[in-house]
Amino acid sequence: MSSVFTEFNLMAELHQPGEKIVLLVMDGLGGLPMQTTGLTELETAVTPNLDRLAAEGMTGLSIPIRPGIEPGSGPAHLSLFSYDPIRYEIGRGVLEALGIGFRMTANDIAARGNFASADSNGFITDRRAGRIGSDECVRLCAKLQAATGDVLADEGVQVFVEPVKEHRFVLVLRGEGLGGNLSETDPLVTGKQPLPVTDSSGSPEGERSARLFNRWIEAARAALVDEPKANSLNLRGIAKDPGLPRFPEIYGMRAAAIAVYPMYKGVASLVGMEIVDFAGDRPSHEIDALERAWNEYDFFFIHVKKTDSYGEDGNFDAKVHEIEAVDAVIPRILALKPGALIVTGDHSTPAKMRSHSHHPVPTLLWSPNARPDTTTSFGEGACTAGGMGLFHATTLIPQAMGHAGRLKRIGA
Amino acid sequence: MSSVFTEFNLMAELHQPGEKIVLLVMDGLGGLPMQTTGLTELETAVTPNLDRLAAEGMTGLSIPIRPGIEPGSGPAHLSLFSYDPIRYEIGRGVLEALGIGFRMTANDIAARGNFASADSNGFITDRRAGRIGSDECVRLCAKLQAATGDVLADEGVQVFVEPVKEHRFVLVLRGEGLGGNLSETDPLVTGKQPLPVTDSSGSPEGERSARLFNRWIEAARAALVDEPKANSLNLRGIAKDPGLPRFPEIYGMRAAAIAVYPMYKGVASLVGMEIVDFAGDRPSHEIDALERAWNEYDFFFIHVKKTDSYGEDGNFDAKVHEIEAVDAVIPRILALKPGALIVTGDHSTPAKMRSHSHHPVPTLLWSPNARPDTTTSFGEGACTAGGMGLFHATTLIPQAMGHAGRLKRIGA
Repeated sequence: MSSVFTEFNLMAELHQPGEKIVLLVMDGLGGLPMQTTGLTELETAVTPNLDRLAAEGMTGLSIPIRPGIEPGSGPAHLSLFSYDPIRYEIGRGVLEALGIGFRMTANDIAARGNFASADSNGFITDRRAGRIGSDECVRLCAKLQAATGDVLADEGVQVFVEPVKEHRFVLVLRGEGLGGNLSETDPLVTGKQPLPVTDSSGSPEGERSARLFNRWIEAARAALVDEPKANSLNLRGIAKDPGLPRFPEIYGMRAAAIAVYPMYKGVASLVGMEIVDFAGDRPSHEIDALERAWNEYDFFFIHVKKTDSYGEDGNFDAKVHEIEAVDAVIPRILALKPGALIVTGDHSTPAKMRSHSHHPVPTLLWSPNARPDTTTSFGEGACTAGGMGLFHATTLIPQAMGHAGRLKRIGA
Repeated sequence: MSSVFTEFNLMAELHQPGEKIVLLVMDGLGGLPMQTTGLTELETAVTPNLDRLAAEGMTGLSIPIRPGIEPGSGPAHLSLFSYDPIRYEIGRGVLEALGIGFRMTANDIAARGNFASADSNGFITDRRAGRIGSDECVRLCAKLQAATGDVLADEGVQVFVEPVKEHRFVLVLRGEGLGGNLSETDPLVTGKQPLPVTDSSGSPEGERSARLFNRWIEAARAALVDEPKANSLNLRGIAKDPGLPRFPEIYGMRAAAIAVYPMYKGVASLVGMEIVDFAGDRPSHEIDALERAWNEYDFFFIHVKKTDSYGEDGNFDAKVHEIEAVDAVIPRILALKPGALIVTGDHSTPAKMRSHSHHPVPTLLWSPNARPDTTTSFGEGACTAGGMGLFHATTLIPQAMGHAGRLKRIGA
């Protein structure tokens, strides 16, 4: 689990052309029993296609980060892409920026912004500005771009303010010599004033960047002073692109990401995958995109979000139905004849807990070359007896590559 | 398994308040079939309560050190406490000193001493001095303390000679600049002379310390010359407190140790656990202590010794009965409502082998938040199909912490 860097060198040395690979991720797939049946969400779902894959292929349970540790979405996806998230850290600001398709450069430093409401003394009264709509977010960002876009020009720094969704936006400062280890302004509770950005790196870049962010915040709050709801804001997760090793180079695969939500496009693009655009937001729409892009790429990451959302809502039945909707599109994936198909989650989100959790994640790996284990259905209990055992998520891609004939023999 | 130091940093960063955790260790729990039933000691024992925990929770097999390696008690417990024993070594002398409640300082170097019998030429005739009683050990240590306590005062070094049990005692030298990598004097067979203490570190501290130990040995053997049985002695496991990272700081838990035997109190106190005093030596007495201390601590290590002792004796049935005695107290632990309860051993001690062995150790983890696996009883065979799989013992505490809600999410 620790020598991931070395593994990358090894993979870069061993990769060769082969069959195509599909990594289908149902966000928060892992669950817990919460009904009298004693079955989890996945075990409750009627999934004839996934069960067939489990019978023909192998199953197991993946550990996203470390045993006992509850993963956030970013680290959990990095791990699926085979980057140990303890070694490779990415700021939330970077993920948000990439998620909206903002092309970050090496001179950029990004923050996740939240519009907020404050009283006349600047004390936060609502950390989400009364949950304003996305249209309102677009208007506010345009207003901020106009009012603050040039406010740091005297120091050679450009400002970009881009809407995300509801109260969320992205702020990017672009210029030479930005960096450091910068703190968040969000006091995390209402009734307090936002904090200033401070630097804990002690570097000249850090000190200057903190000052620039604070200058921008002052100008931005002044521009928002007459807004009825969004008259304040906070910055979180201020960070630069960490410059991760590139997935296509490590593995020798042109890699495509098919996802609805910005966050997941962001983390995929950070490792060098290309984002496939498509209309709609259902699993079937994602398979439309897969079919269209099939000839262009070697590796496809498909992300299904709602399994996680329903888990967070505590909605066991809706999570079950979303899993069944994914099951229904499996024949369309198989019809494309992939060399290996992985079906897994990035982490567990048991409806019982209404939260991400540390529990290992049910996983199946199907391939015409798979050695079948004794598992005949796809579920947490069945996976405990699967041939993949209990494994670290970072080992999934190499396992799929082996099945797809994409790794050369080592030694003679 | 290799990046334990990093893991400690991670744990120190992620821990948060949560539910209480109990680690119940039956020493040498793992066994082998040796009767016509083909069942191990644990599988033979009637354990309705442990079986219920296995059904509601998860099971697996823990590897204490590395596959195939037979653990000593010290390393095995360090591993359960999540310290990789290959990385963190503790001398036997340190464990013995801590086990008798001797407060070691950073200037101390400790040795385990064994009284021995020798012929007129100093050749060892009995490595345990005819198995003298503990009272005799107390008398001999007092005699040595009087005769040798000041023998190194000219070099600024104090001497402490403390009885342990039967032929065993602890010797501690206290002074500035002690250290090195010091050898044992025990020739390990009778008919040979004790060896001198030598240093292999090559440091000035090591050279001086070896000389001081040899000076003390000469004075001590002179003081014992008229003893009928214990007229010689050997020193083993000469070592300083290695200064391990502190368990309460790594994990943010006030930790208590409930144990009968000195060795186990010693290793627990070495990582910063507090020792709970209590009367009696049966599992039920240990649960009395647990109940009394429940509000004072977050984490409880309970050690049951006799499963190992009976294994060493080759007494299959007595080991079975001791396991049943532990099963009987399980409802009292559950009544305290822990957030996570681990039941495991530090290593295997199959009665068939009359010895510690390398075999992986049956383990169960029960929690209200556990994901049940398909295991419905607690035994070596059942554990091979358990949801925890085959895991390194150092990952147990983090797994329990995840279940007890004691680890923050990593990333957003």
